[in-house]
Amino acid sequence: MKVLAPPGGTVGILGGGQLGRMLAMAAARLGIKAHVYAPEAGSPAFDVASAVTCAPYDDRAALAAFAASVSAATTEFENVPAQTLALLGESVPVRPGARAVAIAQDRMLEKDFVNRVGVPTAPYRKVDSLEDLRKALAELGAPAILKTRRFGYDGKGQVRIRAPEEAAAAFAEMKGAQAILEGFVPFSREVSLVAARGADGEIRAYDLTENRHEAGILRESRVPARGGAELSAVAADMARRILEGLDYVGVMGIEFFALGDGRLLVNEIAPRVHNTGHWTIEACAVSQFEQQIRAVAGWPLGDPSRHADATMTNLIGQEAEAWEEYARQPNTAVHLYGKAEARPGRKMGHVTRVTRI
Amino acid sequence: MKVLAPPGGTVGILGGGQLGRMLAMAAARLGIKAHVYAPEAGSPAFDVASAVTCAPYDDRAALAAFAASVSAATTEFENVPAQTLALLGESVPVRPGARAVAIAQDRMLEKDFVNRVGVPTAPYRKVDSLEDLRKALAELGAPAILKTRRFGYDGKGQVRIRAPEEAAAAFAEMKGAQAILEGFVPFSREVSLVAARGADGEIRAYDLTENRHEAGILRESRVPARGGAELSAVAADMARRILEGLDYVGVMGIEFFALGDGRLLVNEIAPRVHNTGHWTIEACAVSQFEQQIRAVAGWPLGDPSRHADATMTNLIGQEAEAWEEYARQPNTAVHLYGKAEARPGRKMGHVTRVTRI
Repeated sequence: MKVLAPPGGTVGILGGGQLGRMLAMAAARLGIKAHVYAPEAGSPAFDVASAVTCAPYDDRAALAAFAASVSAATTEFENVPAQTLALLGESVPVRPGARAVAIAQDRMLEKDFVNRVGVPTAPYRKVDSLEDLRKALAELGAPAILKTRRFGYDGKGQVRIRAPEEAAAAFAEMKGAQAILEGFVPFSREVSLVAARGADGEIRAYDLTENRHEAGILRESRVPARGGAELSAVAADMARRILEGLDYVGVMGIEFFALGDGRLLVNEIAPRVHNTGHWTIEACAVSQFEQQIRAVAGWPLGDPSRHADATMTNLIGQEAEAWEEYARQPNTAVHLYGKAEARPGRKMGHVTRVTRI
Repeated sequence: MKVLAPPGGTVGILGGGQLGRMLAMAAARLGIKAHVYAPEAGSPAFDVASAVTCAPYDDRAALAAFAASVSAATTEFENVPAQTLALLGESVPVRPGARAVAIAQDRMLEKDFVNRVGVPTAPYRKVDSLEDLRKALAELGAPAILKTRRFGYDGKGQVRIRAPEEAAAAFAEMKGAQAILEGFVPFSREVSLVAARGADGEIRAYDLTENRHEAGILRESRVPARGGAELSAVAADMARRILEGLDYVGVMGIEFFALGDGRLLVNEIAPRVHNTGHWTIEACAVSQFEQQIRAVAGWPLGDPSRHADATMTNLIGQEAEAWEEYARQPNTAVHLYGKAEARPGRKMGHVTRVTRI
């Protein structure tokens, strides 16, 4: 395996939010410099980067200079324009590659792909028209969820349809965007797996995590998840199929619905470090952020084993104003992302409670 | 307690080595910006700082601008000129204060102070002349160790005297610097305690650490130390006397000789984060680096309790070239400091092996 960025080398990170920030810090721990590229002035990741570029994602000159300054590049989020990744990929290795990101950007391509490698999802139908939607509802039944194919996150771009009569109103909410109807899944809980694949094909998975969402936004992640080693093994096998099927290099977050009968269905995949893996910072020798940097830089993947139990809670919007109270709590690691404005629903930080196993 | 630097605020760090680097990263985790001031271009801490000043410690204009940009300041090492701290202290809170640093800079003042607060050290004598040295040797006996009072670290500025005849040669090695003779202590092992005192007087100590030095340089630190809770409590009580006696604010590293009969003698104190506390990054929710930032910024101190066992090994000089091998080892967190040149004896990084308790 070829090392792209040894200690002293530079890795490029597209995106300057909290994930980019934690990636840059993980790089620094390994003696690797981080060059962060983001369009927004004052991006959280700029504070800890050894070089920054503040430019739009379609600025070809800025992208070329960025590519020339790094040995490998990655992205903190899946909605970076595919063209940006493709352009970078012409002059520098980009991990994960444009194909994996393109698939994860589109719920329809994603579900098609996941099922193709033998991993089940909820039933779904393509919805390009109101007629499509009516037909899909007839096939999948109500309730069901209509989702935009692209640019959805934290519950945005989704509408629940309780009865066929709601079809027209729901379709109008898509505002002409291509959509997908997902059939109702009677899941008992949500779990996720963060796994990585190195450039040499090695796969390493963290422990299965149990999650709780509120209003479409992750509220809490907990390890160990209920279900034990057996359920973890099922999830890890699904992860392997997906990572290998994409010839993926890097960290991926995979969200599952856990059904009452013990089956797992993939809800969605994220071609990046994942909010449900933040606990790995405290509970593992090598965090998901470092794992991603290792994969991108061509290092051996690190040991994902866990030396502590952990519960991660997101601090959303004004919740982060109680930082002093969190700072006093026992066994508690406080993470604040350096975002100036606490808009409702915005992830401002998180706390991880760590306990001995 | 007054918060000096809330999330979004800025803390100043004097010194740009690995300790400054890890302090800056700990600040970032809390959403606090770090402004690093160091004379050397390419200082390791510059890579992760949100602002940097590269200027000599006696550059009054640069210091004034630095002071104006931060809400509180600290130092990564005890050999920063006392005048620099005093100058900064005129316009911004500096923690620890100039007095504590001045005492720790001088082995003679340090030992006088430690004994004054009722904490024992090895026997010692002031040595300003060869005559002083001969007299001291007669009183303390040989073997004994002659040390410069100031600017000694990692075994530098020390010479062992095996017999009185070696006095003249040893004295010559001090090159006219003020010195101190320390009597031989038949210690069975070396332990250390990293403790912090907040601006409100609250004291928090990490677990006692067992250390092994080679050629005067720390090789390995291990928790838990042998001796259990009893020895930890003795060390913590000594730490409390020292921290309170200095009206200290911040993290301090205290090195002890553990004698065969169970007694502890203070070897030296370091008014800063300490190499023997690096394991706290992995094994505690709040590391020594974050604890220092909290104390400096006026935050509540964090919980120093430990959720894992750990062994930290320094990577010295060319040892860091084996980074890829370390990166493959299980349970191993690799830290590389981003130093360009691997000079013999130079601390280039460390690895921490973490295991479940």
